[in-house]
Amino acid sequence: MILPFIQTSARAEPATRAPLHAMLPLLLSAVSILAAAAASTHHPHPFDPLSPAELTAVRDAVLASPLVPARPLTFHYVGLDEPDKPDVLSYAYGNSASSSRAALPRRAFVIARAGGQSHELRVDVTDAAAPSVLAHAVHRGAGFPTLTLDEQFAAVALPPAHPPFVESVRRRGVDMADVLCAVFPVGWFGGDPPAEERRVVKLLCFVAGATANFYARPLEGVTLVVDLDRMAIVGYRDRVLLPVPKAEGTDYRAGKAGPPYAGRAPAPGTVVQPEGRGFDIDGHFVRWANWEFHVGFDVRAGTVISLASIHDAEAGARRRVLYRGFVSEVFVPYMDPVEEWYYRTFLDAGEYGLGLWAFPLQPGADCPANAAYLDGYYAGQDGKPVENKNMICVFERYAGDVAWRHTEAGFPDRLITEVRPDVSLVVRMVVSCGNYDYILDWEFKTSGSIKFTVSLTGLLEVKGTAYTHADQITEDAHGTLVAENALAVYHDHYVTYHLDLDVDGTNNSFVKNTIATKRNEGGTPRRSYWTVRREVAETEADAQVDVNAAPADLLVVNPNKRTRMGNEVGYRVVPGGATAASVLDDDDFPQRRASYCKKQVRVTPYSKAEKWAPGLYADQSTGDDGLAAWSKRDRGVRNEDIVLWYTVGIHHIPYQDDFPVMPTVSGGFELRPANFFERNPLLTTRPPGLTSRLS
Amino acid sequence: MILPFIQTSARAEPATRAPLHAMLPLLLSAVSILAAAAASTHHPHPFDPLSPAELTAVRDAVLASPLVPARPLTFHYVGLDEPDKPDVLSYAYGNSASSSRAALPRRAFVIARAGGQSHELRVDVTDAAAPSVLAHAVHRGAGFPTLTLDEQFAAVALPPAHPPFVESVRRRGVDMADVLCAVFPVGWFGGDPPAEERRVVKLLCFVAGATANFYARPLEGVTLVVDLDRMAIVGYRDRVLLPVPKAEGTDYRAGKAGPPYAGRAPAPGTVVQPEGRGFDIDGHFVRWANWEFHVGFDVRAGTVISLASIHDAEAGARRRVLYRGFVSEVFVPYMDPVEEWYYRTFLDAGEYGLGLWAFPLQPGADCPANAAYLDGYYAGQDGKPVENKNMICVFERYAGDVAWRHTEAGFPDRLITEVRPDVSLVVRMVVSCGNYDYILDWEFKTSGSIKFTVSLTGLLEVKGTAYTHADQITEDAHGTLVAENALAVYHDHYVTYHLDLDVDGTNNSFVKNTIATKRNEGGTPRRSYWTVRREVAETEADAQVDVNAAPADLLVVNPNKRTRMGNEVGYRVVPGGATAASVLDDDDFPQRRASYCKKQVRVTPYSKAEKWAPGLYADQSTGDDGLAAWSKRDRGVRNEDIVLWYTVGIHHIPYQDDFPVMPTVSGGFELRPANFFERNPLLTTRPPGLTSRLS
Repeated sequence: MILPFIQTSARAEPATRAPLHAMLPLLLSAVSILAAAAASTHHPHPFDPLSPAELTAVRDAVLASPLVPARPLTFHYVGLDEPDKPDVLSYAYGNSASSSRAALPRRAFVIARAGGQSHELRVDVTDAAAPSVLAHAVHRGAGFPTLTLDEQFAAVALPPAHPPFVESVRRRGVDMADVLCAVFPVGWFGGDPPAEERRVVKLLCFVAGATANFYARPLEGVTLVVDLDRMAIVGYRDRVLLPVPKAEGTDYRAGKAGPPYAGRAPAPGTVVQPEGRGFDIDGHFVRWANWEFHVGFDVRAGTVISLASIHDAEAGARRRVLYRGFVSEVFVPYMDPVEEWYYRTFLDAGEYGLGLWAFPLQPGADCPANAAYLDGYYAGQDGKPVENKNMICVFERYAGDVAWRHTEAGFPDRLITEVRPDVSLVVRMVVSCGNYDYILDWEFKTSGSIKFTVSLTGLLEVKGTAYTHADQITEDAHGTLVAENALAVYHDHYVTYHLDLDVDGTNNSFVKNTIATKRNEGGTPRRSYWTVRREVAETEADAQVDVNAAPADLLVVNPNKRTRMGNEVGYRVVPGGATAASVLDDDDFPQRRASYCKKQVRVTPYSKAEKWAPGLYADQSTGDDGLAAWSKRDRGVRNEDIVLWYTVGIHHIPYQDDFPVMPTVSGGFELRPANFFERNPLLTTRPPGLTSRLS
Repeated sequence: MILPFIQTSARAEPATRAPLHAMLPLLLSAVSILAAAAASTHHPHPFDPLSPAELTAVRDAVLASPLVPARPLTFHYVGLDEPDKPDVLSYAYGNSASSSRAALPRRAFVIARAGGQSHELRVDVTDAAAPSVLAHAVHRGAGFPTLTLDEQFAAVALPPAHPPFVESVRRRGVDMADVLCAVFPVGWFGGDPPAEERRVVKLLCFVAGATANFYARPLEGVTLVVDLDRMAIVGYRDRVLLPVPKAEGTDYRAGKAGPPYAGRAPAPGTVVQPEGRGFDIDGHFVRWANWEFHVGFDVRAGTVISLASIHDAEAGARRRVLYRGFVSEVFVPYMDPVEEWYYRTFLDAGEYGLGLWAFPLQPGADCPANAAYLDGYYAGQDGKPVENKNMICVFERYAGDVAWRHTEAGFPDRLITEVRPDVSLVVRMVVSCGNYDYILDWEFKTSGSIKFTVSLTGLLEVKGTAYTHADQITEDAHGTLVAENALAVYHDHYVTYHLDLDVDGTNNSFVKNTIATKRNEGGTPRRSYWTVRREVAETEADAQVDVNAAPADLLVVNPNKRTRMGNEVGYRVVPGGATAASVLDDDDFPQRRASYCKKQVRVTPYSKAEKWAPGLYADQSTGDDGLAAWSKRDRGVRNEDIVLWYTVGIHHIPYQDDFPVMPTVSGGFELRPANFFERNPLLTTRPPGLTSRLS
């Protein structure tokens, strides 16, 4: 007997049927601020995300402030305004005992819309009972803040009352009750200042009907434009009439797609930890094996890992690795230039918010049975705290891998086999940003490695077409015919990590060790060999690397710390598949907005303001702010506090096997110690207890 | 209480101490032929490896044959002489019921040395009681067969009785009882016919003493040359006197490297399958979920997977994917041109034998607790069968990954979350070829993917040096100073897979779908996009691909089978890291011997004779036979029975963290369905039973 995996949350008010995206603030449980506040008896860690009480205090202060009198005022971003780095370092690694460490001020950074302007506010909530606005500014440049869920919900409620849309739906023979619309950012396509100064989005609509997979059934050809500040339809177009792809074969829910099942199933299995978990979660601090780190949350970035350090048993010291790391942006350009598709060049973090679209993880399915869960809190459009239950999971991973091994057959009198099974610690979040699902894993290894894995799954974005067979296609279809009347359009995914590495200290350098072929002049019969050409990046331009070009080891080293052997301590970046870079023309508008995607590796000097690869205001951004623009200053990066930016990239040519839901595709990279330790640290960390029962 | 993982097999005769490599035929349990024969009541599958009874029959026939009268006769390769492909296909996929299928003839291919020649014999053992030699030939070209364990053992026993060596050891202040030597193939460095017509190897020696890690303590500068057919030292050189690196800090055995351990350990954990395993092993046939395949064994290749097919529930049919696949070669060139290192350009499969150096897996460590094990049998130098216990393991992998998922937030009245945890089936072998350990995984996924992972671990090959600190290094050291007096030398690893794909039938084509940027002339504001430029390879030259060059999807398709949508059914090759290609000069000798390593992807028309990438005779080969040489004929590959060759490559710059034993580094590739199924097959295969308890 197979029960489906569906999680259905009943809702109090069934209300209108046609509307759309995510009434999530309603679906997710309301927060009990008192309970949350009571749970925290000591002061928060400087990197703890804003608590429900703090979010409420931020709201109170902003609404009470005379600096922004206009109403309505909507909250688009409320996040931690992190303390200055020297203060955090002193707090985290100072000599005073943890209990006596002085609390740092608690501050929030807010972007709110009011009076047709984007307002930036800094709010002190150190005393949540007496919050105060410290600073206020109005954003003057291009771009708008992240869309709220509420305004998306409001926008998609508009079409059923729009007579031309009603007519379009009728012409297609579709029941309006089956229609759902979704919000699509318009991007930016020229003009200075931006031609589209209004904060607008496009709405595209779909037919659910007999399937949950409405993305497979576009109402192709129909586009609505909504002015979000006026919350009104300001544009309408029904360009072309195409069949709506059929519902049959598109549903992915277990009860709909099967049974009958065919073939034997894999056996049920689960990880059992008889002695319990091997890690502690103390507030937001995780301690496991030789690692410790802080797990935070940001509504735009999702998971934020800070202050990751590793205990070096041989040195008898805790050593710093990463100050702060998170996914800065996810750029997803589609490759069909037609009117309904050319602008689909999503910046999922900046436009939608990765944390906002990270939903509760399914215990035992999204994460194994031995996982622990963390909740997230964010401010809704009204500024009130919203709980995102089970948003991040943490688990020890027993994948059946080997951490290291050796069989030594060279002794005449014995065969030595020494094996250490691999156990790692995974911190996982899943972002379901519209049709796609991104499983984002941080994996900490006792060897000192941190492995970053992006797994893509979810639903393809499908274009309606008259084609029902590939033989009918005589010109570029810009996609694969995955079902009758349904083309899965070519696209890319670029997941860009912001990694402020502090390898054994704050100041680091970026080193490119290129594999260089040499002619042998040494008198032996060998004619060639390769050696290492070491280049230390002086400026940002030196550190922009296409990892598919000349083979090289790329390292972040600390030039001020050396091993006993005299090697600079470091970490290296090891690409693990998914190394695509953008191939759009440099003068193309989406490319200008995400021009950092032409190289997988970039390095910048640390700046607290430089967090978001496409700039702080991603919606309708023009590329004049952001990672590539900052780097044009070509600042020095040698022996500086540097940030590594790594972009995981996939060119996605869809296939029928990816439809109606896509088997996971994974890629990523690893940060691997490179002369960081005097020798393999796995020798002096304790072998897993497992081994005691097997030897 | 931590017990070490060491497996110590006591040996009856402690005998001489200095000698070396692997008295494995003695260490491994002798085979009871009667018992093995009794276990098999029905006829063997055509791809079953030779049984102990069959190996014995081969030996009897060869030794009784008048065709090779010279003695001594040594067996260097005894493997299955597989039946012709049409016969196997008819056997495997014919319409007759399995039980009534006629047995195919059982034949062995043998390479034996006698009278200073390499003899090839084909032996029929269909009736093991009356074996017969069907054919005999003497190999006339360059190259020699795989080294036997016995002759390596005999060779490394020679140095302690060689007075100049005794003097070299004395000069270095080392106790001869602590010295071990190992066999190193000489490669080929010019001359036509090969300058070195004798079958010689070099011996390099090491000091164990207080450590099991003798590879970390070379007796640098000393080289012995042994003529294997004469089994005599024919060359000796003590070129340079260098310190022997110290033993301290090099041992990797748990009891030697720790305790004291530092820091917390990961928690003990294990995979539990309450309903038992989800797969059957019937003889050598494995059936699991929608997959079935044959697991064979070859002394040169190790694991051989054949006749892999997948049940397509929607089509109600079993569909072919792979006829036969195995690791064809592992090329490991080192990058120091000095006298003692220039020739270290190993062909581990052809020179040593991957199956010969695959040792018993450690249950619960090399493979998880839920694994099943298969034994291997090979012919020793004397032709007698040797059992290799627990050489291959098979297990269901519960890594905490997600097979596919989607959270749908677009409905106003419900949040849908549908998740399928991933379970895959792994077939694993570990090859410990001297200092390095290769963990070679075949991973079958219910999505139809086959994932190939090469994980490298084991010991670095270290060069003795006078350096004790990096500051002393003023010229190219060709490696990293990993300990005092110890340089870990730069090198590469190239693991080349032979994959005879038969995607939904025998005849296939190779398609390169290149990502091509286009200028938008379509009237929308978008300026560029990419589309797919499809090229079907006509000949072998078209199908040689550098996967780091222009981005492309590489597919093997069946042009004779299309989906209902009209797309050609296919599989695509997805590189997953480790995409290095050789950078040696084309005229360099090791490059000529392994010139196929300049491109990661190659395609050839199927030929039963073309199995081994560097040619049948790899030891002292000249590159005149082998994959690159065969492909110079530039044969047609379009709509033919084709073989895909994929090389996983790593440039390895060692770091101190890799010493004294290396944390696993992994890379590989995936064969992923590409329009093979009408839609994602995971929808119609049964969700794992696990889900029934979690929903």
